[in-house]
Amino acid sequence: RIMRPDDANIAGNVHGGTILKMIEEAGAIISTRHCNCQAGEPCVAALARVERTDFLSPMCIGEVANVSAEITYTSRHSVEVQVNVMSENILTGAKKVTNKATLWYVPLSLKNVNKVLEVPPIQYARKEQEDEGKKRYEEQKLDRLETKQRNGDVILPVINPDPHTVGYSQSSLIHLVGPSDCTLLGFVHGGVTMKLMDEVAGIVAARHCKTNIVTASVDAINFHEKIKKGCVITVSGRMTFTSNKSMEIEVFVDADPFVDEPRERYRAVSAFFTYVSLSKEGKPLPVPQLLTETEDEKRRFEEGKGRYLQTKAKRQAQMQQAAQQ
Amino acid sequence: RIMRPDDANIAGNVHGGTILKMIEEAGAIISTRHCNCQAGEPCVAALARVERTDFLSPMCIGEVANVSAEITYTSRHSVEVQVNVMSENILTGAKKVTNKATLWYVPLSLKNVNKVLEVPPIQYARKEQEDEGKKRYEEQKLDRLETKQRNGDVILPVINPDPHTVGYSQSSLIHLVGPSDCTLLGFVHGGVTMKLMDEVAGIVAARHCKTNIVTASVDAINFHEKIKKGCVITVSGRMTFTSNKSMEIEVFVDADPFVDEPRERYRAVSAFFTYVSLSKEGKPLPVPQLLTETEDEKRRFEEGKGRYLQTKAKRQAQMQQAAQQ
Amino acid sequence: RIMRPDDANIAGNVHGGTILKMIEEAGAIISTRHCNCQAGEPCVAALARVERTDFLSPMCIGEVANVSAEITYTSRHSVEVQVNVMSENILTGAKKVTNKATLWYVPLSLKNVNKVLEVPPIQYARKEQEDEGKKRYEEQKLDRLETKQRNGDVILPVINPDPHTVGYSQSSLIHLVGPSDCTLLGFVHGGVTMKLMDEVAGIVAARHCKTNIVTASVDAINFHEKIKKGCVITVSGRMTFTSNKSMEIEVFVDADPFVDEPRERYRAVSAFFTYVSLSKEGKPLPVPQLLTETEDEKRRFEEGKGRYLQTKAKRQAQMQQAAQQ
Repeated sequence: RIMRPDDANIAGNVHGGTILKMIEEAGAIISTRHCNCQAGEPCVAALARVERTDFLSPMCIGEVANVSAEITYTSRHSVEVQVNVMSENILTGAKKVTNKATLWYVPLSLKNVNKVLEVPPIQYARKEQEDEGKKRYEEQKLDRLETKQRNGDVILPVINPDPHTVGYSQSSLIHLVGPSDCTLLGFVHGGVTMKLMDEVAGIVAARHCKTNIVTASVDAINFHEKIKKGCVITVSGRMTFTSNKSMEIEVFVDADPFVDEPRERYRAVSAFFTYVSLSKEGKPLPVPQLLTETEDEKRRFEEGKGRYLQTKAKRQAQMQQAAQQ
Repeated sequence: RIMRPDDANIAGNVHGGTILKMIEEAGAIISTRHCNCQAGEPCVAALARVERTDFLSPMCIGEVANVSAEITYTSRHSVEVQVNVMSENILTGAKKVTNKATLWYVPLSLKNVNKVLEVPPIQYARKEQEDEGKKRYEEQKLDRLETKQRNGDVILPVINPDPHTVGYSQSSLIHLVGPSDCTLLGFVHGGVTMKLMDEVAGIVAARHCKTNIVTASVDAINFHEKIKKGCVITVSGRMTFTSNKSMEIEVFVDADPFVDEPRERYRAVSAFFTYVSLSKEGKPLPVPQLLTETEDEKRRFEEGKGRYLQTKAKRQAQMQQAAQQ
Repeated sequence: RIMRPDDANIAGNVHGGTILKMIEEAGAIISTRHCNCQAGEPCVAALARVERTDFLSPMCIGEVANVSAEITYTSRHSVEVQVNVMSENILTGAKKVTNKATLWYVPLSLKNVNKVLEVPPIQYARKEQEDEGKKRYEEQKLDRLETKQRNGDVILPVINPDPHTVGYSQSSLIHLVGPSDCTLLGFVHGGVTMKLMDEVAGIVAARHCKTNIVTASVDAINFHEKIKKGCVITVSGRMTFTSNKSMEIEVFVDADPFVDEPRERYRAVSAFFTYVSLSKEGKPLPVPQLLTETEDEKRRFEEGKGRYLQTKAKRQAQMQQAAQQ
C-alpha cells in the first residue's frame, strides 16, 4: 500500500512501527491460511515471536510498500514465516529492500482460545532446509525461556530528572484496546502492539537527543501472554544504552484487564529497540551519551553494550563471509 | 467533512476512493432509513451497484466536502439513490460540483442476511419520473447480467516485464477485513471496497506513467457477492487500454473466507477505472501507450477502446443537446 | 456519519470524545467559513473555548449522528457557535438530542499565525439576542482568566497506591502529533485534543470503579495555547471528587515541542470531566468513594463538591423554570 503522511514522522520517514504492523499482518494471514488448509477445527494464528530485524533503508511518504510472505518451517504446534518488505518509488521505479523479518505463529482454536492445534506439515525441497528450520526452532525456544526472566522489571517515575539521564527520557502511554486492534478471537494483533512499542521507543529516543530519529533495528520480541479486547495497555520505555551513533531502548507492555475481570495487571511483552538520530540531510548524527545514576542503570548499560558488540561482531562476520563468496 | 492529508496524494489531490467512500456512506444511510420507514422487519441496505461516475473537478486538502443524497426511484426490491458531492473552499467560499453518482441498494433483513425485503414505494411528483426511473432500473438489470460473465478472469504475475507492458504495472494488495470496515450485518461496506479498488488502480496508473495521476471516472461497479468480516480480500488491477490522455484499469476483488468457512475464494466485485496524468500545474499530460503482447491483451485493448469511444460519443451528444437548449 | 465499533466502548456506547470531536469539526467549519465571507486576509478559526456540555443520552454503534451548527454571536475578535447533536436510529427512525454545545473561535491569519483578525458582524433578528450574546461573551472572558490560574499544577506519580486513592487511578498518555491531527495552519484541532482528554478521563474512571463508564458532562474547556505539528503531547488525568453516582476527573494537556524548538514543555489545556458508572442494563451504579490522603487532595475534593452542588442547584432551578412555563 502507499505510505501516507500519517505513517511518517515530520521529516517524511515512515515509522518503523507502521512497517512492523504490515509485516505482522502478512504473517498472520499466511499462517492462518496454512493452518486452515486441512479439514479440521478452524483456527486463527497468533503471533508468538518476532526474530531480530534490521531496518535496512528508510521508506518515505508516497512510496509503495511491497510485502511478501512465505512459510519456511513448521513444527508440530508452530509456523515460521519469512516476510520481506521492499519499498518502491513508483515515479522512478526504484526498489529497495527495507526489511526481512522472521515470525513464529501458533494456531489457536476458534472455539476454545486456550487450545493450541496441530500444524499441517509443509514439504521441503531439500532435506537441509528442514534441518536448518529445526535448528532455528530450537534456538528461539531457548531464547524465549531466557527473556521470560527479565520480565518482572518495572519502570519507576523520576521527579525533576536531569537531561540525558534515564529518568529524563523515559515515557509511557496508555491505550484502550478497541475492536480494530483485535483478531477474530478478540485478542490484540501482534502488529498493533509492536506499533505502539515503536511509538513509545521513538518518543524516548527523541526526548533524549531532540532531533529527528528513526528505528534502526528491533531485537527479538516474545509475546508471552495474549491481551484481550477492552483491556487498557500501558506501554513504557526507557533508554538502556548509547553507542556513538545509536540508542537502545527497552520497552515493556503491561495489560490491565480491569472491566469485569478479577485478574491483576500482567506483563505481556518486552523488547529492545535501536534508534539512530538523523540530520536534515538524512546522515547519522552523534548521540548524547546516556548518564547512568543507579547500580541497575549501570548494569543495564553494560548489558546493552554486550548486545551492541555482539551484533556488531555478527554483522562483520557476515560481511566477511559475503566478501569471500 | 474537512479533507485531511491522509485523504490525498502527494500533490494534495483527494483520492477518488475517499470520495467514493463518502458517497456510499451517504447512500447507505438514506436508503437504510427509507427501507425502515414502515413498521416491519428491520433491515440494512446493501450496495448492489454504482452507475458510471465522472470526477468533474479535483478536491484538495483543507476543502470541505458537502455530500447530499436523494432517493429517486424504488422498485419492489431495490432503491435508486442520487448523490451529489460539492467541494467548498471555506476560505474563499468557492463551491464546485465534484461528483454526481447513482447507486442501487437492496434491503437485507437484520435477522436473516440472505432474505431480501420489500421496499416501501416513494411518491413521484410527475408520472414521467416514475417511467424514467423504471427505464434506468431495467437497463442496470441487463448490464449486471453482462458483467457477471467477465468475472472468471485471473491476473497472473509476470517475471521481469518490459516498461509499458500490461505485466509491468499490474498490482495487487491484500486486506484483512476488520470490524470498522463492516455494516451492522458484518459485511464489508461497498464504500470500503471501492476505496481499496481506487488505491490499486492508482498504483497501476502511477507505475505505468510515473507521474502524478488522478481518478477521472469509474465505470459502473456491480457488487456480485457480499464479503464477510474476517475475510482476506485481494484487490488486483491491470491496465487494459490507453488513449492519448487517459488510462483504463480493470480491477478485481476476490474474497478468501479462510477461517471457519468451507468456501473457496470467490470473485466479489470487478470494475473499470479511468485515470489521467497531471503535470505539476494540474494540466493533463500525454500518456505512454500500453504495449499489448498476448492475444487476450490485444482483445481487452480493443474492448477498452470501444468503451472509450462510446463514452466520448455520449459526452459529445450531451454537450450538443445542452448547447441546443 | 454512522457510528462504528471503533467509536464505542465494549458495551456499545459511543465515546464522549468521538462526539466532542465531531462537534468541534462542525464548529471549525462554520466559523472559518464565516470569518472568510468578506474579502480580506484569509484565516482559519481556532478553538478558544468550549462551554460546559452535558451528554443527555447515550449514542450507540450503528446509529447516525446528525450534527448542526449555527453562529449565535460575534464580538470583534471571536465567534460563538451553537452546535446540536442528534442521534438517529435509522432502523426505527427514533431521534434523540445527544448534546448541545457552545464553542468560541478566534480567526487567525493564514499568513501570520500570531495575528488575530477581525470578525465580520452577524445580523440579529432581535436586539435582545445581541445583548444576551454580549453577556455570554463577558462571562466566558472572566472565566478564562480564572482557569488560567490553576494551570501550574502537575500530576506526580505515586508508587504502589491503595485502591480508590487518587494515585491508584491517575493515568497519562503521550501522543505524537501527526498531519491528520492538524488544521491548515499546522496546529492541532481542538477536537483532537478533546478526544484524547476524554480517553484519559475514561481510563481514570474505569480504573477507579472497574465497571463500564460513560461521559456525563464536560466542564468548560479553555485552550490557552496552540500545539504545533510534531509536538509530543502528554495528557494526564486524576480523580478530584466523587458523589454517590458520579466521578469528577481533572485532565491536563502539556505540549513538548522537542524537535528543533528551543521552547520548554508548556500547559496547553486543562478541564474537568464527569463520568457515571453503568450496569449491564445501562442503569447508573453507585461509585466507590474517593480516598483523599494529602491536604491538596482534600482541598480539590471540596472544590469538586462545590462545582457538583452548584451544577445540581442550577439544573433544579432550570427544571422549576421549565415546569412553570
